[in-house]
Amino acid sequence: MKLTLTPEVISAENFAPYGELISAHNTPIMINDGNTERYHRLGNVTVGPDEQQGQGILSIFRGQPRTLPMNIRMMERHPLGSQAFLPASDEPYLVLVCLSHEVNGKEEPDPATFKLFVAQGEGVNYPANCWHHPLLAINKVSDFWIVDRMGPGNNLEEFFFPDDWQIDISM
Amino acid sequence: MKLTLTPEVISAENFAPYGELISAHNTPIMINDGNTERYHRLGNVTVGPDEQQGQGILSIFRGQPRTLPMNIRMMERHPLGSQAFLPASDEPYLVLVCLSHEVNGKEEPDPATFKLFVAQGEGVNYPANCWHHPLLAINKVSDFWIVDRMGPGNNLEEFFFPDDWQIDISM
Repeated sequence: MKLTLTPEVISAENFAPYGELISAHNTPIMINDGNTERYHRLGNVTVGPDEQQGQGILSIFRGQPRTLPMNIRMMERHPLGSQAFLPASDEPYLVLVCLSHEVNGKEEPDPATFKLFVAQGEGVNYPANCWHHPLLAINKVSDFWIVDRMGPGNNLEEFFFPDDWQIDISM
Repeated sequence: MKLTLTPEVISAENFAPYGELISAHNTPIMINDGNTERYHRLGNVTVGPDEQQGQGILSIFRGQPRTLPMNIRMMERHPLGSQAFLPASDEPYLVLVCLSHEVNGKEEPDPATFKLFVAQGEGVNYPANCWHHPLLAINKVSDFWIVDRMGPGNNLEEFFFPDDWQIDISM
């Protein structure tokens, strides 16, 4: 299994199978006496099937830039809630995602669905169970606002690729 | 009642009576194999006393710059959920907040508690019922990631100042 991915420019449409793009791409409504355009409900914050069992929280992730090309060794997902990455600057960053398929009764990343996106001035929101790579800043140390879930239960699932998988990303 | 406010630099401490400052001001934990500093749980997203009755959503507010000095005619608050403003750029902006007191059996803004902050590269999270002014961008059109609540019930309360109040803000 060998994949070499180069990024495509992210849009609400091409990212839709994986998650929600948080960017000013829909029609705003005017609020605050005409002072502010509200791009409404660009993403939904979910905190698991039982809302009593978790809560949405805000954090910052400060990501070191990656060196490309880069070998990808794992993907992760959060079964109990969404996770949004909202950039605090206009620096571009990469978004590596894939869909799930069942192998021997276990869910794992489906190699046929890997996608590498480049986003700039746009945020992404992964729904629960969307496989994604940890933060991929590229040019410089970059801050992101994170909206995700805390609460009881295991909200992190990691998949480490077997030796016969080789997945590389480059620009 | 006359107030003229000039901004003070915001910090987690001086903003604490009003809401949560979303900035990298606490000690991070290292995640993603040492690639990323996580500034964890900078804010809490609440969606009302009954979690079944609303949900957290992500939006963008694109604010026009205000002209200063500016006369303030109203304050608002959201009784059913928090509202976070997370800047998408490093542009400074103003945060006008106050606490509540009871007048003739009704909650209204307490003039003794008005505060004007300037924030840059930092987000704020207003808890439910925190009186605040709508978005105050200053130098240029500025985008903010908004994390707030949608659902049944009235989540907007506005207070328009009587004629004998004169509240002005300037730099």
